[in-house]
Amino acid sequence: MGKRINFSCPMPEFDFDIITLAHGSGGLLTNKLLEQGVFSLLSNEYLDQQHDGAIFQLDGRVAFSTDSFVVSPITFPGGNIGDLAMNGTMNDLAMCGAVPKYISLGLIIEEGLKVEELWKLLESIKGISDAYDVKVVTGDTKVVERGKGDKIFINTSGIGMVKEKSNIGIDQIKAGDHILVSGHIATHGMAIMSVREGLEFQTTLESDTQYIGDVALELIDMFGDDIKFLRDPTRGGLATVLNEIAGKLELSIELEETSLPVLPEARSACELLGLDPIYVANEGIFVMVVAPDVSEKCLNFMEKNEKCGAAAKVGIASSDHPRKVIVKSPIGGRRVVSMLVGEQLPRIC
Amino acid sequence: MGKRINFSCPMPEFDFDIITLAHGSGGLLTNKLLEQGVFSLLSNEYLDQQHDGAIFQLDGRVAFSTDSFVVSPITFPGGNIGDLAMNGTMNDLAMCGAVPKYISLGLIIEEGLKVEELWKLLESIKGISDAYDVKVVTGDTKVVERGKGDKIFINTSGIGMVKEKSNIGIDQIKAGDHILVSGHIATHGMAIMSVREGLEFQTTLESDTQYIGDVALELIDMFGDDIKFLRDPTRGGLATVLNEIAGKLELSIELEETSLPVLPEARSACELLGLDPIYVANEGIFVMVVAPDVSEKCLNFMEKNEKCGAAAKVGIASSDHPRKVIVKSPIGGRRVVSMLVGEQLPRIC
Repeated sequence: MGKRINFSCPMPEFDFDIITLAHGSGGLLTNKLLEQGVFSLLSNEYLDQQHDGAIFQLDGRVAFSTDSFVVSPITFPGGNIGDLAMNGTMNDLAMCGAVPKYISLGLIIEEGLKVEELWKLLESIKGISDAYDVKVVTGDTKVVERGKGDKIFINTSGIGMVKEKSNIGIDQIKAGDHILVSGHIATHGMAIMSVREGLEFQTTLESDTQYIGDVALELIDMFGDDIKFLRDPTRGGLATVLNEIAGKLELSIELEETSLPVLPEARSACELLGLDPIYVANEGIFVMVVAPDVSEKCLNFMEKNEKCGAAAKVGIASSDHPRKVIVKSPIGGRRVVSMLVGEQLPRIC
Repeated sequence: MGKRINFSCPMPEFDFDIITLAHGSGGLLTNKLLEQGVFSLLSNEYLDQQHDGAIFQLDGRVAFSTDSFVVSPITFPGGNIGDLAMNGTMNDLAMCGAVPKYISLGLIIEEGLKVEELWKLLESIKGISDAYDVKVVTGDTKVVERGKGDKIFINTSGIGMVKEKSNIGIDQIKAGDHILVSGHIATHGMAIMSVREGLEFQTTLESDTQYIGDVALELIDMFGDDIKFLRDPTRGGLATVLNEIAGKLELSIELEETSLPVLPEARSACELLGLDPIYVANEGIFVMVVAPDVSEKCLNFMEKNEKCGAAAKVGIASSDHPRKVIVKSPIGGRRVVSMLVGEQLPRIC
């Protein structure tokens, strides 16, 4: 269910219990919240400068990525919006073939958020930061009035150093390449849905949110440009990523339905809600397109890693039906899987 | 009133007039909005890759900064939230002594925003991007339900290259150093207040939002480490920046009240609302602390630049009353100006 990082740190004694508009004023209360809380918890040599930005030396090819997180509820089985914000942007960097190094943290808080809730999110951020030596070097905090936000939205942007051997790019993909996934699909989306207001159902499902990028980067080290393409299939699920590939190249993607790894609990939940797991958002897995001759080796490597719940070859790139994603059923049927139309699961990340 | 960049580009014919949750799904509608709109407008070699992040070469000292913008209303006299988001983060980078190069753009849109309104903001972003050769290289779009956001929040994060001669740092400041501002204070804050719901009053005041960092960077080129400290005094105004300086060093800041440049319209508006201009948010100016022997030269340079409305020496750093910011009135009175307590003007940027 994802490698959960647990970190806790006693909350300082603030002389306020909830976040008010004054905490976003830039004045005394902003200062108290930051000085006594955020800065001390996340402290590092760059953040400690407390300037308008962080300054550091970089030499080489870098990746730069941004993501805003608006998930609701902000805490869910297996994680919280703080975990998502760190793991999500770190994974995005790794999907560019880069080792995540520096993160910026932008908080948009709705007036009324309990400081204790905020602290839990910051603990999660700190835990992941420490575990992977990814530093939160700069940040920003805004507060909006009640009813103009929803507890908290978090933006993380990140900078990573691109692996020398990395040559990730959609145009590297050729007919015959294999499509692999690193773990079960649909787990994150269904874990969120299981606690979403009005949609509660019994399940032990937990989000698989985790930093999975390290596994992908090790594979790049091992197989260089035989690793053609990487993507974390978040919103829109696996179907959307594969449609993007098929749509940009004159290729089809052919999937074997039986090879798609889905946890039984996630499958039941999907059936209950009438959702197709292939469209459901993921957080702790990646999709990888590889040259056929390294496919088996990649799978063997992933199977040994505890972060990869169920690494599998799920399909191949083909030139037969350009621009289409086709799923083959066990009894020989074929159906075209289009890009997600409408919105199945709003605010899943 | 700031150097306004005007840029317009015909809006593509979208088959929707308002943003819905489906535009944040990651699926077909997200794709339409981005492919037909955002990507084509902001197109550059990095963004066009449409990967999870942008990849580029960097060599040297870089600055990395982030800012979320939640200003209300999103369009106001003199600018909009798009202008603020670009100018704000670019100014933050320049305040670190860095030339802004790459920007990430994170949009959190409330369901129901008119596409036309969004387009106007994107035009502003594009105009500034072009004018200063600062590329929007990566982005993210999320949509939240009606009543869970407020039209649009924008996060911009940015990367800039630090000037070789830059040695900006709060601990460079010494007693005797001069405090300069590049233009009128309180203009932005009072322009927003003039159109804020329930607080409308007659004024021709326009926000001074602009990229002013280029002026600061030229001064660094000219005077190197005699430029000790730079900051754009946004939320909390000039008083807050100066209190941060005084609080972190064992110094006081002594200001001459009569030397503080305030536009007559902004002063009247402040009087009407009972606000002190020294606490009001700014967008298009910077505060600079310089060695006394370059102070005059800096002022001369700024006075010739159209972006500097009213460059002025406003005070000096002193060791007389450590940790205090003191304002001297024309009749010889002295008052201590503390950090802003509470929130005068929520969501001003």
